[in-house]
Amino acid sequence: MKKIINNPDNFVMEMLEGILLAHSKEVKIANDDKRALVRYDRPVKGKVAIATGGGSGHLPIFLGYVGKGMIDGCAVGNVFASPSATTMLNVTKAIDGGEGVLYIYGNYSGDVMNFDMAAEMSEFEDIRVETVLVADDVASAPKGSETKRRGVAGLFYAYKIAGAAASEGKSLEDVKRVTEKALSGTRTMGMAISPCIIPSAGKPTFTIGEDEMEIGMGIHGEPGIKREKLKTADEITEELVNRILEDLPYENGDEVSVLINGLGSTPKEELYIVYRKVHLMLEEKGIKIYRPYVGEYATSMEMGGMSITLMKLDEELKDFLDKQADTPFFQQV
Amino acid sequence: MKKIINNPDNFVMEMLEGILLAHSKEVKIANDDKRALVRYDRPVKGKVAIATGGGSGHLPIFLGYVGKGMIDGCAVGNVFASPSATTMLNVTKAIDGGEGVLYIYGNYSGDVMNFDMAAEMSEFEDIRVETVLVADDVASAPKGSETKRRGVAGLFYAYKIAGAAASEGKSLEDVKRVTEKALSGTRTMGMAISPCIIPSAGKPTFTIGEDEMEIGMGIHGEPGIKREKLKTADEITEELVNRILEDLPYENGDEVSVLINGLGSTPKEELYIVYRKVHLMLEEKGIKIYRPYVGEYATSMEMGGMSITLMKLDEELKDFLDKQADTPFFQQV
Repeated sequence: MKKIINNPDNFVMEMLEGILLAHSKEVKIANDDKRALVRYDRPVKGKVAIATGGGSGHLPIFLGYVGKGMIDGCAVGNVFASPSATTMLNVTKAIDGGEGVLYIYGNYSGDVMNFDMAAEMSEFEDIRVETVLVADDVASAPKGSETKRRGVAGLFYAYKIAGAAASEGKSLEDVKRVTEKALSGTRTMGMAISPCIIPSAGKPTFTIGEDEMEIGMGIHGEPGIKREKLKTADEITEELVNRILEDLPYENGDEVSVLINGLGSTPKEELYIVYRKVHLMLEEKGIKIYRPYVGEYATSMEMGGMSITLMKLDEELKDFLDKQADTPFFQQV
Repeated sequence: MKKIINNPDNFVMEMLEGILLAHSKEVKIANDDKRALVRYDRPVKGKVAIATGGGSGHLPIFLGYVGKGMIDGCAVGNVFASPSATTMLNVTKAIDGGEGVLYIYGNYSGDVMNFDMAAEMSEFEDIRVETVLVADDVASAPKGSETKRRGVAGLFYAYKIAGAAASEGKSLEDVKRVTEKALSGTRTMGMAISPCIIPSAGKPTFTIGEDEMEIGMGIHGEPGIKREKLKTADEITEELVNRILEDLPYENGDEVSVLINGLGSTPKEELYIVYRKVHLMLEEKGIKIYRPYVGEYATSMEMGGMSITLMKLDEELKDFLDKQADTPFFQQV
């Protein structure tokens, strides 16, 4: 196991300590709960607060987006494991500025159970909570079963849109509405070429041949749609984009933001080779690209591979997408 | 060879096309030279221009920092190969806003030869050129032979400081002075655990045992100081930081910025575990940390490993470090 770590049992806590030390003016822990990370200046009075949470091992997802213009707090789980409902409640209490809290998180059963429990507990504390589930992974369930899909890189767009709307002083209902609108037009397809290693397990999450790739694999190594010989970047991109386009569908005349997301060890050079093909394909189909993002936005430690996300835009969404953001892992001027 | 690419011969051009398509409002090519990447709004009249260049395969280094608050243009070479003097001249001519051009690049013989030639050619074009070489890699030559050292992640700090000074309207002499001051207090030590693959070669740049690491390896796989069994993150960090501290030396009462740089496949989680130890060590030694950076700033495609850079600060450097920047690969609000 080749990792630059200390005792695997301390992986999450030492990572968190590093983040708290490096970004001590931006984030802190809440209610003495070392897994409850919140904006330093929380609660922001008069602003809807946004909470998220999920397992560790996906930086910048989830906690990396806690900050100005994005989200207010994050419940941090162990590697690939849901945080507790108690931690979610601690986050909720710490960030509520009187306007209610919107939960935005990926559609995984453990997270759903715990966030639902936290929402109930929050009611007893007289905190209004609404929930938006992120389920953008086309590969994880067929069309018609969208609510069964997993949440992956689309989380970034959900945070960005919701964060901007909340910063603009929108109501809880309005932040929820615009986030749901954004996600209703958001679709992701990913592929993997190599696994990651969970520190405490010390072995790869899956095995894959030296000349193979898996289309549709999840960010925890969940099985994808098919495993086959590694193709060229253009061929891979074509397959992923076509699956995305037909799913919504995205059509001639649409305007979209595109996110090319590296899963961990895939070089940025390769992500831009993928972006090039996406751009040429969409151009040919009359779909206009607005404000693309290329980089590591939702990873799986050192997993090799990438995902492509499209978010359909209208004027309201473009306006929120353009707003400034300033968090430890994501800045937009 | 597991890479998401097309024909290896097109690796650099397709990457560049992807970057130009994704960031068409920020960068463009100059003088029909597809390897001469410049700020879209160049030349910026009345501002000292900053040019850099070097081989591909190190994103965000070099071209990723072309943009507001950083540098004005970049000559792009093939993977790990110097760009031509002609491309450097094309960049120089395209970005000169009448106040002269500062060349900032890493201390590699091919780049030095070509940039020197470009500087001479620029004189014939009546463009004033000054040069600052980046040579921050402690491992690459002993103390006393600092001018023989290679340039690595310290390039980021050189661009940041020079870019901010130039944006503030400083003269060519002044931008050069402050950049040299920044670099005189900048030191880096790196280590690697796994190689990268040059697309056209199709095989790893070096081999290393499954339980080994190499201290001091260069970002092209240049031999380091020693190869040994992989240690813990804390032990590795201790060794790198101690070598950095004694080289300048950095002392009790100093204030520094710290850059923990991932070489490609090392997860951000691990970089923060490293940052944690750096922070604790410096705190104990009475060295204050100001505005740390943790992430991928100078990579070697999918190489595994990381480097630690310290830059000694004074009030002038802190002021420049704090300025806003907005480039395709680096934003600071």
